[in-house]
Amino acid sequence: MSDVKKVVLAYSGGLDTSVIVKWLQETYNCEVVTFTADIGQGEEVEPARTKAQTLGVKEIYIEDLREEFARDYVYPMFRANTIYEGEYLLGTSIARPLIAKRLIEIANETGADAISHGATGKGNDQVRFELGAYALKPGVKVIAPWREWDLTSREKLMAYCEQHDIPVDFSSKKKKSPYSMDANLLHISYEGGILEDPWAEAEEDMWRWSVSPEAAPNQPTYVELTYDQGDITEIDGQAMRPHEVVEKLNKLGGDNGIGRLDIVENRYVGMKSRGCYETPGGSIMLRAHRAIESLTLDREEAHLKDELMPKYAEVIYNGYWWSPERRMLQAAIDETQKNVSGVVRMKLYKGSATVVGRKSDASLFDESIATFEDDAGAYDQKDAEGFIKLNALRLRIAAGKGRKQS
Amino acid sequence: MSDVKKVVLAYSGGLDTSVIVKWLQETYNCEVVTFTADIGQGEEVEPARTKAQTLGVKEIYIEDLREEFARDYVYPMFRANTIYEGEYLLGTSIARPLIAKRLIEIANETGADAISHGATGKGNDQVRFELGAYALKPGVKVIAPWREWDLTSREKLMAYCEQHDIPVDFSSKKKKSPYSMDANLLHISYEGGILEDPWAEAEEDMWRWSVSPEAAPNQPTYVELTYDQGDITEIDGQAMRPHEVVEKLNKLGGDNGIGRLDIVENRYVGMKSRGCYETPGGSIMLRAHRAIESLTLDREEAHLKDELMPKYAEVIYNGYWWSPERRMLQAAIDETQKNVSGVVRMKLYKGSATVVGRKSDASLFDESIATFEDDAGAYDQKDAEGFIKLNALRLRIAAGKGRKQS
Amino acid sequence: MSDVKKVVLAYSGGLDTSVIVKWLQETYNCEVVTFTADIGQGEEVEPARTKAQTLGVKEIYIEDLREEFARDYVYPMFRANTIYEGEYLLGTSIARPLIAKRLIEIANETGADAISHGATGKGNDQVRFELGAYALKPGVKVIAPWREWDLTSREKLMAYCEQHDIPVDFSSKKKKSPYSMDANLLHISYEGGILEDPWAEAEEDMWRWSVSPEAAPNQPTYVELTYDQGDITEIDGQAMRPHEVVEKLNKLGGDNGIGRLDIVENRYVGMKSRGCYETPGGSIMLRAHRAIESLTLDREEAHLKDELMPKYAEVIYNGYWWSPERRMLQAAIDETQKNVSGVVRMKLYKGSATVVGRKSDASLFDESIATFEDDAGAYDQKDAEGFIKLNALRLRIAAGKGRKQS
Amino acid sequence: MSDVKKVVLAYSGGLDTSVIVKWLQETYNCEVVTFTADIGQGEEVEPARTKAQTLGVKEIYIEDLREEFARDYVYPMFRANTIYEGEYLLGTSIARPLIAKRLIEIANETGADAISHGATGKGNDQVRFELGAYALKPGVKVIAPWREWDLTSREKLMAYCEQHDIPVDFSSKKKKSPYSMDANLLHISYEGGILEDPWAEAEEDMWRWSVSPEAAPNQPTYVELTYDQGDITEIDGQAMRPHEVVEKLNKLGGDNGIGRLDIVENRYVGMKSRGCYETPGGSIMLRAHRAIESLTLDREEAHLKDELMPKYAEVIYNGYWWSPERRMLQAAIDETQKNVSGVVRMKLYKGSATVVGRKSDASLFDESIATFEDDAGAYDQKDAEGFIKLNALRLRIAAGKGRKQS
Repeated sequence: MSDVKKVVLAYSGGLDTSVIVKWLQETYNCEVVTFTADIGQGEEVEPARTKAQTLGVKEIYIEDLREEFARDYVYPMFRANTIYEGEYLLGTSIARPLIAKRLIEIANETGADAISHGATGKGNDQVRFELGAYALKPGVKVIAPWREWDLTSREKLMAYCEQHDIPVDFSSKKKKSPYSMDANLLHISYEGGILEDPWAEAEEDMWRWSVSPEAAPNQPTYVELTYDQGDITEIDGQAMRPHEVVEKLNKLGGDNGIGRLDIVENRYVGMKSRGCYETPGGSIMLRAHRAIESLTLDREEAHLKDELMPKYAEVIYNGYWWSPERRMLQAAIDETQKNVSGVVRMKLYKGSATVVGRKSDASLFDESIATFEDDAGAYDQKDAEGFIKLNALRLRIAAGKGRKQS
Repeated sequence: MSDVKKVVLAYSGGLDTSVIVKWLQETYNCEVVTFTADIGQGEEVEPARTKAQTLGVKEIYIEDLREEFARDYVYPMFRANTIYEGEYLLGTSIARPLIAKRLIEIANETGADAISHGATGKGNDQVRFELGAYALKPGVKVIAPWREWDLTSREKLMAYCEQHDIPVDFSSKKKKSPYSMDANLLHISYEGGILEDPWAEAEEDMWRWSVSPEAAPNQPTYVELTYDQGDITEIDGQAMRPHEVVEKLNKLGGDNGIGRLDIVENRYVGMKSRGCYETPGGSIMLRAHRAIESLTLDREEAHLKDELMPKYAEVIYNGYWWSPERRMLQAAIDETQKNVSGVVRMKLYKGSATVVGRKSDASLFDESIATFEDDAGAYDQKDAEGFIKLNALRLRIAAGKGRKQS
Repeated sequence: MSDVKKVVLAYSGGLDTSVIVKWLQETYNCEVVTFTADIGQGEEVEPARTKAQTLGVKEIYIEDLREEFARDYVYPMFRANTIYEGEYLLGTSIARPLIAKRLIEIANETGADAISHGATGKGNDQVRFELGAYALKPGVKVIAPWREWDLTSREKLMAYCEQHDIPVDFSSKKKKSPYSMDANLLHISYEGGILEDPWAEAEEDMWRWSVSPEAAPNQPTYVELTYDQGDITEIDGQAMRPHEVVEKLNKLGGDNGIGRLDIVENRYVGMKSRGCYETPGGSIMLRAHRAIESLTLDREEAHLKDELMPKYAEVIYNGYWWSPERRMLQAAIDETQKNVSGVVRMKLYKGSATVVGRKSDASLFDESIATFEDDAGAYDQKDAEGFIKLNALRLRIAAGKGRKQS
Repeated sequence: MSDVKKVVLAYSGGLDTSVIVKWLQETYNCEVVTFTADIGQGEEVEPARTKAQTLGVKEIYIEDLREEFARDYVYPMFRANTIYEGEYLLGTSIARPLIAKRLIEIANETGADAISHGATGKGNDQVRFELGAYALKPGVKVIAPWREWDLTSREKLMAYCEQHDIPVDFSSKKKKSPYSMDANLLHISYEGGILEDPWAEAEEDMWRWSVSPEAAPNQPTYVELTYDQGDITEIDGQAMRPHEVVEKLNKLGGDNGIGRLDIVENRYVGMKSRGCYETPGGSIMLRAHRAIESLTLDREEAHLKDELMPKYAEVIYNGYWWSPERRMLQAAIDETQKNVSGVVRMKLYKGSATVVGRKSDASLFDESIATFEDDAGAYDQKDAEGFIKLNALRLRIAAGKGRKQS
């Protein structure tokens, strides 16, 4: 343990990571650099400065990464209509690669030889942080205190704080939630507590970002989203930067009770866990993006995207953002988005985000062909006979030779 | 055209297929056998008997296929969490293979050498009927009047009726909808009319099976679905047959404004079309099935199912139910469902079907491992380090050799 | 048929396409533009000029497309290690998109409104030509004489020639083969004749590009292929252009009895057919490319390539080179080739092309880690325990809950 | 370490595993049960009895598993045309699940609480043994001496033998090869030594199962393989059990210089390694199985098999034979094999196994349709026009709207 000279810690300013600062200083006898980022979690990050100073930290990084996060991570992911296991919008997963990248960049800037984080040994986040770190700086030392130390209960943590003069009011201002939570621009997650029983319904007062559908307005809200090459660039005709788009949609979605999710998921480390998520903006974005694609994507590229999506989601969920396979999939996905431009009209109402219209200058919808009315010869119905006959040929040959088809 | 001696027609009893009866008799100078099935479309089928008799039909088949449809088609499809292009629950597609199968069986019973249907030359249904027919009886002759005749407008059809004494009141009892509709146990679909403009929102009075979310009750409805090997066998503890399950869920869903869908889809014949669908029960079933699987499926089989699903959906959408590739996929899917048993609790409220709990004797959720509390050694957090290190190895080697990972 | 004013014909200069020139002039009363390309088929193309002139053709295009063919079609395809149905190197398929593209470009240059080709109505080539043509010029008229005319036997063709003063010696210089053959830079194919019996072994004198393995030299030939970003740029240290590479490898392979293939394949139009192919250079290139990738590709991108390959092969085989899905797949494939550079050493001997060595500056093979000798701590074997434990966790939980795993 | 009472060891009778017996007895102070299996490695297994007795082992299992290995592992794998990374026939991988299963069964029979093996911490085999063991007996303790002990060099091993009176002549009878080798019915593998340089060609005297192509007979050998439902049941008309088939084909292949392979592969633990393999019989089986499938499989199931194969190969390579995903894939694969029956004729000559004929009562090859001669109307070439037109429709619409296709 004596080898580490300086370590960059992903520091939230909360109690746990404050304990980690002290524990790293003591255990590794090394300098600690703290890195605190605003990725849209909805809490002030500046207070982390004083806290870090109090703990004797000399190099303190505090950054607003919201735009970068939305533009370079959230947006590319939504181009693929990404959902993990049919439901989960990957709100936690997608934030980790950016943190890992900045940890490594700061390590390089400050001459640190190690990084550290506050994720536990049971979860996915440790994997995501560390895979990213190793991919970007292969010789880096990673310190994961929760896998090493013996502060395995809240009582022991509190005792440690007392012994080391760590002010516990760091986190006591807000009442300790019974849930383990994580928030960023895209979502807030809840785990633990009564959620550990998958049959138990989440309590209404757990949810923080959205009103309940029951409490949402009795009138629907309509919103128009303008897409340019797969990304939302305007809301109701007003140009916005990526993180502003997500923030605005979070507000609209949350106000209308949209984006709550309650699932049991399969972690990369091999266990099932139950989590609840609020992703108001993301839930709107997923449907809207599918809608603009429905008009502008070719059928076969759309289907191929659907076949690749579960793999892409798994790659991100498992923490392989910084990998050749992610770049390979991204290249395929991005290739399809050149014409994914236009406007989608959504209706938001008491928990539902519904597509009610879509239009595009790049639309492949051809009313003159699709029409039930006279199409003036745009489509020759007789072509269908040959189409069916040849598509059936292999089946007919097989049946003719006695193969059972049922 | 003189070769056809007897043709079995998929006969709805409506105006169009009544015209087809007469047109087949005249054009092919052949006997017509009518086949009318109750597949849950919500209309009486028995009146088709008199109508067919009036048209001179001697062999008339009228059948209640609701249970077979639900059990052998809808249920197997839902085991795969099947959705086409991210949204569509395949309500129309899944009914066609059963109709095709019965047409062929009746052709065999009655010694008919041809079958006929009332689907147009622009749509998917012609393909689904005919691929099924050819697969099951490779030498069958298929007559698709809409691809052959010149009755290409409603006016011409009416004139034909008048000329041939076909009583037009056959269908005039219900006011002619501006939409082309199709209904069965699983859904009702709407196409045409103002829907041909993808930007136009569907009118409220188009929808027939569900109330609007706005008009749904202000109190949520909770329902518990019991699964046995991937299929729902009980609702709120009451045993039901498959079609009763779907009917009951249609009622519950429809009453709560659930299951409306408005999409632009890619037809197999190569064009985009806009359709609206109501699938109240199916929308509940999709989410519930995912929920029971989340507890009982292994991660890797779940992910593999997700990767195969788009292909399976495409196979059904395109009309290849009666094909080796469908059976191959079904074998894989069914293999995974042996332990997909348990209960899912859903909340239905103003358009949303939300999972709020799930339990199973076959659950793979292990609270003793997943817990945030002390797990008494069930999981050794130190294992994670080796897990991450070896998963990172290929990335570290690459980075060590100068490969860029970002 | 009177609408066509000018048609561009893919003209080989042989008897069949000479008949087509005349038939088009007569049947459509239109001007015919001929297009004859050297794509490495091994026959002079210049003689086609006089033949076309004799037939009254005024606009005659004769072009050497070998380099373009190798560079823009063959090379990109080999980056994917493309094989159709486990065996076929797609020699015919890959030449069609280039012909289609030039036909359309010439149509645009000459103001032609139609294109024509000499492919039959049973094969894949008609599909490939026409899909390409429609994709590049959606309003083009395609004339496929073999699907239209009644010259359905050799006798009728000959009679037509006599009636229309088409000199039959056009093709009589080489004895008429019993096989239907097609050749280009990448391969020569044989169909028909005794090959229509899949049990019959091809006769030795059918093969034209390769000696039999038995007749090949008794000493192996070694060759070194240098790759740059997935493409061969040098043979035995000598820089070559793409088509020179293929030609050189055809020579080396053919001399050593390499590249014969005898398969039954599934055509896109629905039937099985039996074909024999000689692809001497391509057979070497496939193995060599895999070898250089084995050293330079990351595992996961390599596996993803393998999963996508069958789809990519199908896309090309079916004629969808000019499609969004091909471009999407190509984007993914090309993204992986940036580091696929280095040298592969092959041994060619009596029918086999065997890799015996490979090296690369971009190698990801790390001898210091892979070694069976002391690795000086480069790899910590204890990491494997955690790796296995967590990978086994889902299986252990399942078994612990009584799931059968065998 | 005191917890283990009895351990079942996969015991080869060689020096390394003899050392492990002693080391287990000493280190864990536990009883050792040895398990030695004949899986076709070509060495006597009975001598292992005396050796084990000498080491004080009381419970000794020696078994002939060749038939079970061929029937239940090799055969099912070949139904999928399984190859890893385009080249490797998985000879080592496929033997591990059977060993793991017997280790666990013997542990259950003898009341052992642990198993042990002699695989190193760098390779795939440890993973395959242990994943299998955990899947079949989740609470089992696994002891992997190579990851634990400090006998990390041959010298230390020898010193240990001397200290513990382990007779070194156990293994000295055959000169120590410079390669790490592993053999079973399906193949023999070579790693290490000069092979650690991927540019170095393997030495001729390394290969043990096959003559060099140069030394093979100058006359080809023809062989006919009879398939029943995907499995070979006869060679040249003589019925054989599965392991007899593989043994016979190994002989035929080895005599004709067939089945040598030299590759760099990606291990599951994250590194690349170079291996040489001899798989004479398997190389013949792969091509022959593809050939019988080419005649009897439907196109779409064949293509779907090709798309699934890389995943299936990866599952086996990585050690997940005893997993739900393997069973799921196997269900799909086996579903397709019902009609994969018939005869394949192969030519074996100086390193090549070439298909020269195939026939089947279940053939889907329809000569009356495929013929270049008059097909008497079996296939209507005019159908192709509609087939192409509708398949082109999406491309034409896109091009018509200005999308670039090239």
